[in-house]
Amino acid sequence: MQVLFSPAQIAEIVKPKSALGDTAESIRSIASLEDARPGDLSFLGNPKYKGQVAGSKASLILVPGDYEGAPQPGQQYLWVDNPSAALSLVCARVEQILWPKPEPGIHPSAVVSAKARIATSASIGPLCVVEDGAEVGERTHLQAQVFVGREARIGADCWLMPGVVVSTLCEVGQRVRLHSGVVLGADGFGYEFVSGRHQKVPQVGTVVIGNDVEIGANSTFDRARFSRTVVGEGTKIDNLVQVGHNVVIGKHCILCSQVGVSGSVVIEDYVVLAGQVGVAGHLTIGKGAKAGGQAGISSSVAAGSYVNGTPAIPYLLERRLAVLHQRMPELFKRVARIEESLKLDIEQTPAREH
Amino acid sequence: MQVLFSPAQIAEIVKPKSALGDTAESIRSIASLEDARPGDLSFLGNPKYKGQVAGSKASLILVPGDYEGAPQPGQQYLWVDNPSAALSLVCARVEQILWPKPEPGIHPSAVVSAKARIATSASIGPLCVVEDGAEVGERTHLQAQVFVGREARIGADCWLMPGVVVSTLCEVGQRVRLHSGVVLGADGFGYEFVSGRHQKVPQVGTVVIGNDVEIGANSTFDRARFSRTVVGEGTKIDNLVQVGHNVVIGKHCILCSQVGVSGSVVIEDYVVLAGQVGVAGHLTIGKGAKAGGQAGISSSVAAGSYVNGTPAIPYLLERRLAVLHQRMPELFKRVARIEESLKLDIEQTPAREH
Amino acid sequence: MQVLFSPAQIAEIVKPKSALGDTAESIRSIASLEDARPGDLSFLGNPKYKGQVAGSKASLILVPGDYEGAPQPGQQYLWVDNPSAALSLVCARVEQILWPKPEPGIHPSAVVSAKARIATSASIGPLCVVEDGAEVGERTHLQAQVFVGREARIGADCWLMPGVVVSTLCEVGQRVRLHSGVVLGADGFGYEFVSGRHQKVPQVGTVVIGNDVEIGANSTFDRARFSRTVVGEGTKIDNLVQVGHNVVIGKHCILCSQVGVSGSVVIEDYVVLAGQVGVAGHLTIGKGAKAGGQAGISSSVAAGSYVNGTPAIPYLLERRLAVLHQRMPELFKRVARIEESLKLDIEQTPAREH
Repeated sequence: MQVLFSPAQIAEIVKPKSALGDTAESIRSIASLEDARPGDLSFLGNPKYKGQVAGSKASLILVPGDYEGAPQPGQQYLWVDNPSAALSLVCARVEQILWPKPEPGIHPSAVVSAKARIATSASIGPLCVVEDGAEVGERTHLQAQVFVGREARIGADCWLMPGVVVSTLCEVGQRVRLHSGVVLGADGFGYEFVSGRHQKVPQVGTVVIGNDVEIGANSTFDRARFSRTVVGEGTKIDNLVQVGHNVVIGKHCILCSQVGVSGSVVIEDYVVLAGQVGVAGHLTIGKGAKAGGQAGISSSVAAGSYVNGTPAIPYLLERRLAVLHQRMPELFKRVARIEESLKLDIEQTPAREH
Repeated sequence: MQVLFSPAQIAEIVKPKSALGDTAESIRSIASLEDARPGDLSFLGNPKYKGQVAGSKASLILVPGDYEGAPQPGQQYLWVDNPSAALSLVCARVEQILWPKPEPGIHPSAVVSAKARIATSASIGPLCVVEDGAEVGERTHLQAQVFVGREARIGADCWLMPGVVVSTLCEVGQRVRLHSGVVLGADGFGYEFVSGRHQKVPQVGTVVIGNDVEIGANSTFDRARFSRTVVGEGTKIDNLVQVGHNVVIGKHCILCSQVGVSGSVVIEDYVVLAGQVGVAGHLTIGKGAKAGGQAGISSSVAAGSYVNGTPAIPYLLERRLAVLHQRMPELFKRVARIEESLKLDIEQTPAREH
Repeated sequence: MQVLFSPAQIAEIVKPKSALGDTAESIRSIASLEDARPGDLSFLGNPKYKGQVAGSKASLILVPGDYEGAPQPGQQYLWVDNPSAALSLVCARVEQILWPKPEPGIHPSAVVSAKARIATSASIGPLCVVEDGAEVGERTHLQAQVFVGREARIGADCWLMPGVVVSTLCEVGQRVRLHSGVVLGADGFGYEFVSGRHQKVPQVGTVVIGNDVEIGANSTFDRARFSRTVVGEGTKIDNLVQVGHNVVIGKHCILCSQVGVSGSVVIEDYVVLAGQVGVAGHLTIGKGAKAGGQAGISSSVAAGSYVNGTPAIPYLLERRLAVLHQRMPELFKRVARIEESLKLDIEQTPAREH
């Protein structure tokens, strides 16, 4: 499927402040300045690549307002405020073309309970299952092979991709995008150790996903023991992330890939957790706090702070200790030299420790 | 779907030793002491919240035998031996109501081989696939979109949630709960490097899951090279855990979320691995050993020991080293002061190293 | 399902240089020297187990050319160049028997667009979905419940296991094996922070998987922002691995389980990343480089180097620092002893730091 734009159509989308040059090419794809060939749209998104503009083979280049230069023959420059944002406008148009709004209705191969409430503008794709009492909102799209359990509620304008599972009683807000393999509402991981066996603590709470949340492929969210596991409005979660039972995540947070959040953690608004971060149970991560990749958070983190390492400590302290850690060979040498100058022999003298 | 209990029904479930007060409310949900409102059941599970009982708005509160206090008007206290265990009894009843035993039989949309053996009391939900020679035991429930491969065997009283995959020849015991997205029997990760390419070592063994095991969403278990990858009876495994080929896990272990176990590892009974722990190949983790979150286990661990860190070392040693690590800035200062007092200049004197 | 070989059939497969002894048993399974019982095939794959050959109960044992010894009565030894490779030949035959080539054709329960192009020798299993414009190559097998999106292309001789998702426009080469739950083409994780909200950067690129790639269960690959996320020919990827948008992975790499690769990383040919390694965004991992388990790679890695730790540094340096780290209690004692011998009191004298 070929998406084709004329240069004039691109200009209509990005609304340039000015333009120079002319190209006869249709725009067939997007490429970096370096990789671009005729027929490509490119852009100067980062000033450090400024030197690549003049040599780029792209037919059409989005440049920032302060860029000075002129296109080669058969090439056009469009000056815009923010080339990266302008490119996103083009990509959004491409997205609409590649994934057109599906026709409303229920695919004949889907298994949808007569007791489910499906909005008339919703689209239930092939081989989906929707159980008794479930609700699917207006214009929401269950793409294919999606499962929506009993009494679960999906709001309006959502997109659930192939293989998503939303279990019994879980709730999804509006404009939520769940990528393939997301599981909402697996049992929380709770057992009591009785007579040498782990006895299950039943998990009968739910998962509640706020508006405008996006969740990446194969991420998992456990239902609460008896209340709600919550993801706040506007929070974005990457692939293969684990969120334990009773966790409450605030608004507009970012959880990168493979983050693991243990049970009953509270993550306040605007928190950013980089890839593979782990958070131990029952902690609070304060508003706007950040954690570096692979950080192991074993105590609560103050609002606004930036932590790193395992166990996670303030970022600058962690960086300083890392530098000193690398200087340990030198330190051992210095201590040995001191001992030699003092004729001390470590084997012979007892020492107090501190 | 509303689950309603009368206070008398709750009392019938938890069998209190004594009761005080009276409430006209029906019990509609469960909440913590602090969050509870009229119509809620709450409980004093942890003595540190004792002070919250008197102010709680819950209509019904489970308190331990030694709790002293009296309910407000319209409120009832029930004294029980273990409020947390009593609450679990209530939750278990809620679970039975929310997930009633499905009707036996095969959903017409399921694709079940005529050569599969399905117990008459088993329930095969919509859009499941069961291949030739597979067995499904009495009262076992394949909820929806489950795959059971050729000659695989699922025991009695299991629950396989939407999207579970049990591949060819794999075996699952009795009373096993597999959450959505679990994959049993992907190929082990084995290659031989021949002439600049990784040549596949065929993986023709199986995966064998013992009785009373529970496995969390999207966890993966590879089939053995030619024998069996094993999970012992009563072991509980959280979400997104990876278990490599030929691993043998004992009975009653706990593997928390995102743990990774490399090939041919032996994990003995009652081992506990916290979240994101990694275990290198061919090691043995002795009976009852524990590892802290994110530990990187690169050598075998003795029975009963508790390790932490990467590489994992005994917990107390790791903690002590972590404290000294944080004191490195101080140590560098102390050494500099000694050198100054001795007029030593690190640049000029050679030193033996130790 | 029982796979039975006569000793003569095994000999035909492994083509021994010589043989000794005779067994009347049919070969029913494969086991290690120690575990083997009559009816088992075993092998001496690693010289350190040489002592176990004489006591093994296996009916048939593959031994290397230089092995000296003689079978017990009712037992046969086969001398081969490489017993492990010979065993793989047997396992490959077992694999062919356990997973015979499926019949070509489209299962009646599959939902395949009339606008998809399915090769006549391809096999589309039950409950698969293939959308408009998708291509499936000769002899390729979509086992069950697989999703192939609009305009996606799957080459010849591939095997997509139950529950695999290949999204719109993604491309898969020839002889590719995708295990259950693999997701190709989830959106890249890209947002711009505007007015207190994370605004989605549309992700309209694709994922391109080269020939002879194998990808483990539940691993996820994000589509590029506008170009291609690439996995090169012959690369092998384990379970639960995350590959971000715009990542380019070279040929013949090994990515072990739970590795996470952030966006726009370049991984050159023959790189090996051990389990749970994390790679930060926009880095280059040079040709043939290796990283140890759980390494946190935060800067580019030179070709041929071997790194370890978080942040990842050269392996030998990391090992040396780890040893010194364990000697910190000793170092603190030595410094205290020096201070005592000098009558220095850390509280009283200011010191320059270095």
